[in-house]
Amino acid sequence: MNPDWLDKIRWDENGLVPVIAQEAGTNDVLMFAWMNREALARTVELGEAVYWSRSRRKLWHKGEESGHTQKVHEIRLDCDEDVVLLKVEQAGAIACHTGRHSCFFQKLEADGWQSVEPVLKDPHSIYK
Amino acid sequence: MNPDWLDKIRWDENGLVPVIAQEAGTNDVLMFAWMNREALARTVELGEAVYWSRSRRKLWHKGEESGHTQKVHEIRLDCDEDVVLLKVEQAGAIACHTGRHSCFFQKLEADGWQSVEPVLKDPHSIYK
Repeated sequence: MNPDWLDKIRWDENGLVPVIAQEAGTNDVLMFAWMNREALARTVELGEAVYWSRSRRKLWHKGEESGHTQKVHEIRLDCDEDVVLLKVEQAGAIACHTGRHSCFFQKLEADGWQSVEPVLKDPHSIYK
Repeated sequence: MNPDWLDKIRWDENGLVPVIAQEAGTNDVLMFAWMNREALARTVELGEAVYWSRSRRKLWHKGEESGHTQKVHEIRLDCDEDVVLLKVEQAGAIACHTGRHSCFFQKLEADGWQSVEPVLKDPHSIYK
Protein backbone atom coordinates (compact mmCIF):
# COMPACT_ATOMS: atom_id res chain seq x y z
CA MET A 1 0.00 0.00 0.00
CA ASN A 2 1.17 3.50 -0.86
CA PRO A 3 2.33 5.11 2.42
CA ASP A 4 0.40 8.31 1.54
CA TRP A 5 -2.44 7.03 3.72
CA LEU A 6 -0.28 7.80 6.77
CA ASP A 7 0.11 11.39 5.60
CA LYS A 8 -3.63 11.94 5.60
CA ILE A 9 -3.65 11.70 9.37
CA ARG A 10 -3.23 14.95 11.29
CA TRP A 11 -0.65 13.84 13.85
CA ASP A 12 -0.59 16.06 16.94
CA GLU A 13 2.36 18.18 18.09
CA ASN A 14 3.94 15.05 19.58
CA GLY A 15 3.45 13.04 16.41
CA LEU A 16 0.63 11.04 17.98
CA VAL A 17 -2.98 10.26 17.20
CA PRO A 18 -5.62 9.08 19.73
CA VAL A 19 -6.94 5.58 19.06
CA ILE A 20 -10.19 3.97 20.21
CA ALA A 21 -10.31 0.17 20.21
CA GLN A 22 -13.78 -1.25 19.70
CA GLU A 23 -14.71 -4.91 19.77
CA ALA A 24 -15.95 -6.27 16.45
CA GLY A 25 -19.34 -7.93 16.93
CA THR A 26 -20.37 -6.47 20.29
CA ASN A 27 -19.22 -2.94 19.39
CA ASP A 28 -18.04 -2.55 23.00
CA VAL A 29 -15.43 0.16 23.48
CA LEU A 30 -12.49 -1.71 24.97
CA MET A 31 -9.77 0.87 25.50
CA PHE A 32 -8.21 4.11 24.41
CA ALA A 33 -4.54 4.60 23.59
CA TRP A 34 -2.16 6.49 21.31
CA MET A 35 -0.21 5.67 18.17
CA ASN A 36 2.62 7.31 16.33
CA ARG A 37 3.29 6.80 12.63
CA GLU A 38 5.42 3.74 13.23
CA ALA A 39 2.85 2.13 15.55
CA LEU A 40 0.07 2.51 12.97
CA ALA A 41 2.24 1.25 10.11
CA ARG A 42 3.24 -1.74 12.27
CA THR A 43 -0.43 -2.37 13.20
CA VAL A 44 -1.35 -2.63 9.51
CA GLU A 45 1.69 -4.79 8.74
CA LEU A 46 1.07 -7.17 11.64
CA GLY A 47 -2.74 -7.15 11.63
CA GLU A 48 -2.59 -6.65 15.41
CA ALA A 49 -2.79 -3.47 17.46
CA VAL A 50 0.55 -1.84 18.21
CA TYR A 51 0.30 1.33 20.27
CA TRP A 52 2.76 3.97 21.42
CA SER A 53 3.20 3.88 25.17
CA ARG A 54 3.52 7.50 26.29
CA SER A 55 4.72 6.49 29.76
CA ARG A 56 7.35 3.99 28.59
CA ARG A 57 8.09 5.96 25.41
CA LYS A 58 8.18 2.91 23.18
CA LEU A 59 6.10 0.81 20.84
CA TRP A 60 3.72 -1.46 22.68
CA HIS A 61 2.43 -4.53 20.91
CA LYS A 62 -0.76 -4.96 22.91
CA GLY A 63 -0.87 -8.42 24.48
CA GLU A 64 2.85 -9.12 24.04
CA GLU A 65 3.04 -9.92 27.77
CA SER A 66 -0.55 -10.83 28.67
CA GLY A 67 -1.45 -12.71 25.49
CA HIS A 68 -4.45 -10.39 25.12
CA THR A 69 -3.65 -9.31 21.59
CA GLN A 70 -6.08 -7.43 19.38
CA LYS A 71 -6.56 -8.75 15.87
CA VAL A 72 -7.49 -5.79 13.69
CA HIS A 73 -10.57 -6.19 11.51
CA GLU A 74 -10.98 -2.62 10.37
CA ILE A 75 -9.35 0.79 10.70
CA ARG A 76 -11.42 3.96 10.58
CA LEU A 77 -10.52 7.64 10.59
CA ASP A 78 -12.77 10.50 11.68
CA CYS A 79 -13.94 13.57 9.76
CA ASP A 80 -11.13 15.75 11.11
CA GLU A 81 -8.56 13.06 10.34
CA ASP A 82 -7.14 13.25 13.83
CA VAL A 83 -8.70 10.24 15.61
CA VAL A 84 -8.40 6.55 14.67
CA LEU A 85 -10.95 3.82 15.47
CA LEU A 86 -9.88 0.17 15.39
CA LYS A 87 -12.38 -2.66 15.18
CA VAL A 88 -10.68 -5.59 16.83
CA GLU A 89 -11.09 -9.16 17.90
CA GLN A 90 -9.94 -9.19 21.52
CA ALA A 91 -7.98 -12.31 22.55
CA GLY A 92 -9.30 -13.74 25.83
CA ALA A 93 -12.10 -11.12 25.76
CA ILE A 94 -9.92 -9.13 28.16
CA ALA A 95 -8.61 -5.74 27.08
CA CYS A 96 -7.96 -4.16 30.48
CA HIS A 97 -4.85 -4.67 32.61
CA THR A 98 -7.20 -5.09 35.60
CA GLY A 99 -8.46 -8.35 34.04
CA ARG A 100 -11.74 -6.85 32.87
CA HIS A 101 -13.31 -7.00 29.42
CA SER A 102 -13.16 -3.24 28.89
CA CYS A 103 -11.15 -0.46 30.49
CA PHE A 104 -14.35 1.56 30.91
CA PHE A 105 -15.64 -0.28 33.96
CA GLN A 106 -16.31 2.69 36.23
CA LYS A 107 -19.76 4.19 35.96
CA LEU A 108 -20.91 7.51 37.35
CA GLU A 109 -23.68 6.89 39.87
CA ALA A 110 -25.42 9.25 42.28
CA ASP A 111 -22.70 8.48 44.85
CA GLY A 112 -19.74 8.80 42.49
CA TRP A 113 -17.76 6.35 40.34
CA GLN A 114 -18.61 2.68 40.84
CA SER A 115 -16.93 -0.37 39.33
CA VAL A 116 -19.69 -2.17 37.46
CA GLU A 117 -17.85 -4.80 35.40
CA PRO A 118 -16.48 -8.08 36.75
CA VAL A 119 -12.81 -9.02 36.88
CA LEU A 120 -12.63 -12.00 34.51
CA LYS A 121 -9.06 -12.97 35.36
CA ASP A 122 -6.78 -12.13 38.27
CA PRO A 123 -4.24 -9.59 36.95
CA HIS A 124 -1.50 -11.39 38.95
CA SER A 125 -2.04 -14.43 36.78
CA ILE A 126 -2.02 -12.30 33.63
CA TYR A 127 1.30 -10.55 34.27
CA LYS A 128 4.02 -12.82 35.58
CA MET B 1 -23.82 14.99 44.04
CA ASN B 2 -20.56 15.58 45.88
CA PRO B 3 -18.17 17.27 43.40
CA ASP B 4 -15.36 14.89 44.49
CA TRP B 5 -16.21 12.74 41.48
CA LEU B 6 -14.65 15.41 39.26
CA ASP B 7 -11.41 15.18 41.25
CA LYS B 8 -11.06 11.49 40.49
CA ILE B 9 -10.41 12.32 36.86
CA ARG B 10 -6.79 12.83 35.85
CA TRP B 11 -7.14 16.00 33.79
CA ASP B 12 -4.26 16.52 31.36
CA GLU B 13 -1.78 19.41 31.44
CA ASN B 14 -4.39 21.58 29.70
CA GLY B 15 -7.12 20.62 32.15
CA LEU B 16 -8.82 18.42 29.57
CA VAL B 17 -9.94 14.81 29.28
CA PRO B 18 -10.60 12.93 26.02
CA VAL B 19 -14.22 11.84 25.57
CA ILE B 20 -15.67 9.10 23.38
CA ALA B 21 -19.36 9.37 22.52
CA GLN B 22 -21.02 6.03 21.87
CA GLU B 23 -24.61 5.50 20.79
CA ALA B 24 -26.76 3.71 23.34
CA GLY B 25 -28.41 0.71 21.74
CA THR B 26 -26.27 0.28 18.62
CA ASN B 27 -23.00 0.85 20.51
CA ASP B 28 -21.71 2.75 17.46
CA VAL B 29 -18.84 5.11 18.21
CA LEU B 30 -20.17 8.47 17.09
CA MET B 31 -17.41 10.97 17.79
CA PHE B 32 -14.45 11.92 19.89
CA ALA B 33 -14.00 15.26 21.64
CA TRP B 34 -12.60 16.88 24.77
CA MET B 35 -14.05 18.18 28.02
CA ASN B 36 -12.75 20.36 30.78
CA ARG B 37 -14.09 20.26 34.32
CA GLU B 38 -16.81 22.77 33.59
CA ALA B 39 -17.95 20.91 30.45
CA LEU B 40 -18.31 17.63 32.32
CA ALA B 41 -20.10 19.25 35.26
CA ARG B 42 -22.45 20.98 32.80
CA THR B 43 -23.02 17.68 30.93
CA VAL B 44 -24.18 16.02 34.13
CA GLU B 45 -26.32 19.01 35.11
CA LEU B 46 -27.98 19.28 31.70
CA GLY B 47 -28.13 15.57 30.81
CA GLU B 48 -26.76 16.48 27.38
CA ALA B 49 -23.19 16.43 26.09
CA VAL B 50 -21.28 19.68 26.53
CA TYR B 51 -17.73 19.57 25.21
CA TRP B 52 -14.78 21.95 25.27
CA SER B 53 -13.96 23.19 21.80
CA ARG B 54 -10.17 23.37 21.59
CA SER B 55 -10.29 25.41 18.37
CA ARG B 56 -12.87 27.94 19.55
CA ARG B 57 -11.66 27.79 23.16
CA LYS B 58 -15.13 27.70 24.64
CA LEU B 59 -17.82 25.37 25.91
CA TRP B 60 -19.70 23.69 23.12
CA HIS B 61 -23.17 22.36 23.82
CA LYS B 62 -23.25 19.74 21.08
CA GLY B 63 -26.26 20.32 18.83
CA GLU B 64 -26.86 23.90 19.95
CA GLU B 65 -26.75 24.97 16.29
CA SER B 66 -27.58 21.78 14.39
CA GLY B 67 -30.20 20.40 16.79
CA HIS B 68 -28.18 17.18 16.94
CA THR B 69 -27.93 17.07 20.70
CA GLN B 70 -26.74 14.05 22.64
CA LYS B 71 -28.87 12.94 25.56
CA VAL B 72 -26.56 11.27 28.05
CA HIS B 73 -27.60 7.83 29.30
CA GLU B 74 -24.42 6.83 31.06
CA ILE B 75 -20.96 8.15 31.88
CA ARG B 76 -17.99 5.82 32.19
CA LEU B 77 -14.37 6.32 33.20
CA ASP B 78 -11.45 4.09 32.25
CA CYS B 79 -8.99 2.23 34.47
CA ASP B 80 -6.41 5.04 34.34
CA GLU B 81 -9.09 7.62 35.08
CA ASP B 82 -8.01 9.76 32.14
CA VAL B 83 -10.59 8.93 29.45
CA VAL B 84 -14.39 9.37 29.60
CA LEU B 85 -16.95 7.35 27.66
CA LEU B 86 -20.47 8.73 27.18
CA LYS B 87 -23.40 6.55 26.17
CA VAL B 88 -25.76 8.86 24.37
CA GLU B 89 -28.99 9.04 22.48
CA GLN B 90 -28.13 10.95 19.32
CA ALA B 91 -30.82 13.38 18.11
CA GLY B 92 -31.51 12.95 14.39
CA ALA B 93 -29.11 9.97 14.38
CA ILE B 94 -26.51 12.41 13.05
CA ALA B 95 -23.41 13.11 15.11
CA CYS B 96 -21.03 14.34 12.39
CA HIS B 97 -20.89 17.86 10.99
CA THR B 98 -20.71 16.27 7.51
CA GLY B 99 -24.28 15.03 7.99
CA ARG B 100 -23.26 11.44 8.65
CA HIS B 101 -24.29 9.19 11.52
CA SER B 102 -20.75 8.84 12.87
CA CYS B 103 -17.59 10.87 12.44
CA PHE B 104 -15.68 7.64 11.72
CA PHE B 105 -16.82 7.23 8.14
CA GLN B 106 -13.42 6.79 6.49
CA LYS B 107 -12.19 3.22 6.25
CA LEU B 108 -8.70 2.09 5.37
CA GLU B 109 -8.83 0.00 2.21
CA ALA B 110 -6.05 -1.40 0.00
CA ASP B 111 -6.06 1.88 -1.94
CA GLY B 112 -6.18 4.21 1.07
CA TRP B 113 -8.97 5.92 3.05
CA GLN B 114 -12.45 5.56 1.57
CA SER B 115 -15.71 7.16 2.72
CA VAL B 116 -18.01 4.25 3.46
CA GLU B 117 -20.95 5.86 5.27
CA PRO B 118 -23.76 7.81 3.59
CA VAL B 119 -24.48 11.50 4.13
CA LEU B 120 -27.90 11.46 5.77
CA LYS B 121 -28.50 15.19 5.58
CA ASP B 122 -26.89 17.95 3.55
CA PRO B 123 -24.62 19.89 5.94
CA HIS B 124 -25.76 23.16 4.30
CA SER B 125 -29.25 22.49 5.56
CA ILE B 126 -27.92 21.59 9.03
CA TYR B 127 -25.91 24.77 9.58
CA LYS B 128 -27.66 27.94 8.46
